[in-house]
Amino acid sequence: MEVIVHKYGGTSVGTPDKIRNVARRVKEVKDNGYEVVVIVSAMGHTTDELIDLMNKVTDNPDPREYDMLVSTGEQVSAALLAMALQAQGCPAVSLTGGQAGVVTEDIYKKARIKDIKLDRIKKELKAGKVVVVTGFQGVDSQGDIITIGRGGSDTSAVAIAAALHAQVCDIYTDVDGVYTTDPRICPDAKKLKYVSYEEMLELASLGAQVLHPRSVECASIYNMVIHLRSSQKEIEGTYIMSPERIIEEGGKMEKKEAVRGIALDENIAKIGIFKVPDKPGTAARLFGALAADKINVDMIVQSIHTAGSQADMAFTVDKPDLKKAVAITEKIAKELGAEGVVSDSDVSKVSLVGIGMVSQPGTASKMFAALSGEKINIQMISTSEIKVSCIIKAEQGKQAVQLLHKAFGLDKVA
Amino acid sequence: MEVIVHKYGGTSVGTPDKIRNVARRVKEVKDNGYEVVVIVSAMGHTTDELIDLMNKVTDNPDPREYDMLVSTGEQVSAALLAMALQAQGCPAVSLTGGQAGVVTEDIYKKARIKDIKLDRIKKELKAGKVVVVTGFQGVDSQGDIITIGRGGSDTSAVAIAAALHAQVCDIYTDVDGVYTTDPRICPDAKKLKYVSYEEMLELASLGAQVLHPRSVECASIYNMVIHLRSSQKEIEGTYIMSPERIIEEGGKMEKKEAVRGIALDENIAKIGIFKVPDKPGTAARLFGALAADKINVDMIVQSIHTAGSQADMAFTVDKPDLKKAVAITEKIAKELGAEGVVSDSDVSKVSLVGIGMVSQPGTASKMFAALSGEKINIQMISTSEIKVSCIIKAEQGKQAVQLLHKAFGLDKVA
Repeated sequence: MEVIVHKYGGTSVGTPDKIRNVARRVKEVKDNGYEVVVIVSAMGHTTDELIDLMNKVTDNPDPREYDMLVSTGEQVSAALLAMALQAQGCPAVSLTGGQAGVVTEDIYKKARIKDIKLDRIKKELKAGKVVVVTGFQGVDSQGDIITIGRGGSDTSAVAIAAALHAQVCDIYTDVDGVYTTDPRICPDAKKLKYVSYEEMLELASLGAQVLHPRSVECASIYNMVIHLRSSQKEIEGTYIMSPERIIEEGGKMEKKEAVRGIALDENIAKIGIFKVPDKPGTAARLFGALAADKINVDMIVQSIHTAGSQADMAFTVDKPDLKKAVAITEKIAKELGAEGVVSDSDVSKVSLVGIGMVSQPGTASKMFAALSGEKINIQMISTSEIKVSCIIKAEQGKQAVQLLHKAFGLDKVA
Repeated sequence: MEVIVHKYGGTSVGTPDKIRNVARRVKEVKDNGYEVVVIVSAMGHTTDELIDLMNKVTDNPDPREYDMLVSTGEQVSAALLAMALQAQGCPAVSLTGGQAGVVTEDIYKKARIKDIKLDRIKKELKAGKVVVVTGFQGVDSQGDIITIGRGGSDTSAVAIAAALHAQVCDIYTDVDGVYTTDPRICPDAKKLKYVSYEEMLELASLGAQVLHPRSVECASIYNMVIHLRSSQKEIEGTYIMSPERIIEEGGKMEKKEAVRGIALDENIAKIGIFKVPDKPGTAARLFGALAADKINVDMIVQSIHTAGSQADMAFTVDKPDLKKAVAITEKIAKELGAEGVVSDSDVSKVSLVGIGMVSQPGTASKMFAALSGEKINIQMISTSEIKVSCIIKAEQGKQAVQLLHKAFGLDKVA
């Protein structure tokens, strides 16, 4: 029997009514002769409420206890969904990450999934039950509860779908697909039928937060098709798959557009170090220290300083990590004999993403021209084969997205 | 190093402030050189809120999913208490029932604790940590979460204290001890310094709901002293121990009083069966069927009917079980050829409890006289060596307690 994996986000299971609605959709799939595994997030704002409660108890929560606390949110929604299914006459069982065999690294709050031991899931599927699994969590070798980072339920879903060799992993959410840019910023943004993993990865990393980046990475490793779709409307969403598969599926037409989408990331901050003595190993030392503290560094720009063998470096981190990152950077800067460290959290990153950009060299310069035409100053630039990102002032972010969306004709995508 | 076991109920950990307060008390004990294990209930009304949520999803929840759902309440409070301890500089770790090695029977919602595998608790104590354990739950042989019935956190605490060979199990609650009767009914009720297991068991079973009966039973099996005390006021509460130990501790004086306390149980309902053919095995068949459905039957009264070899039987069950119990009783009554079944949920049970009653035969008749003197009609009577219970009309319950409290001089206990 073919296995279907569904994932429902927090908004989709936010109320008892919505949970019953999800149960109805899941039951339909089961009744059509499939084995169904459902991964759920915590209801609505549960995780935030638990964190609020925590903040009233301590300023400095232990990561282990944090995981113990927040993992309860998914346990509640999983149990309720299993009950809702049973109430509709559909046999079901809920499993915690640990019971479902999700084994993670021994790193609290941000662990990666190491393995999925399928015995229990397979046993329950064989017994004719829909299996509801708590997203966002697993257990370590000691049996302690470990969460895999916020938004990690997407990753749980893809990993479980891959382990079960499912055809597709349906991720239900409160948007109905991937758009050329955020429709709240550009009302004429268009929904895309197909997006490649690489493009989605860039879009997700860059602030189009419909899907957790790690889930896309995981899907690309296992070549798992993700169908990102609405939990409210019964319409097709966006398929995230390999470029080869997109072409097979008849998505050739879209390759014509060099730029597939525009993303805005308002959750970043910029750090600069001046006059770092230009010796081998300096970058490794700085970014090694940041990585050791699990700080994600995104854009890195280094330029040789004109006066002598010194370099200026600049990089971006997530806003919540800024304070910690600055402290580490200042310490390393001192050790390296650099002149000073500055930081700025009043910035945004606007990015063009598209596989087609590889073969269309003029894209970046067209972007710079469009921005400067509207007096938007570019503070940092970073390019890869499928994207161009610019750091600009935070207050100009939305304007930049709107003008680029138009400049690259994305308002006219079929 | 000596181990101290504390248990804090839902009211005591009801808010972040209260959790910090509990942490302060626990840290004091730890700082005095003890190893400390703390068992916690869910915060305030969390369990009821989860059940409300559940009732909006289904009328007929699966017991397995019920346990999965409600067990999250204790996980939240345990994690928060561990964080609060850490914030006060006291190393701590929270453990779920499963992680703490609490193994139960494979019966959802009402399991008994089978075993406590102490490896993890001992390891954490050895590492110098306060161990916070979720009350009310364990895991079965399959690793599924099992709760042990409402109020079961008391039982968790006593079982863990017994397994650790603790000197005493301190149960902190929102009352400051055991009183001669409910002070809300009798303002002149007096706090008792010592109560024997048997008396406490009767008092708890009979509606003085300060302590879960099963926890007292468990304590009596392992001869574990329970110190029931206030989580708000730092004063001594009531010690629950064996009669021998009470005498050792200088509690002899209290043996003089035949009646130690008066309890009112308003959570009961009465079922009667008329003209049951008086054959061997009829009682076993009826009460066996009720027991098979986990319905607790309390008082049972049987009287030979005057006309022929037929008996009338009456018994009481917990109010929430009434509907189910009546259905079972009607089915069995039909099979047995009984004439009919009646039920009444508008009743209360008032009871006198005291070890001294064994040697004071006039107690029961004094009780009946006191009740009839105030025109309170007695519907059923049941006596044991240490208690006398009467079923009366619900509306007369409080009045009965007040007049008996006075009649037996409990308002004058030192």
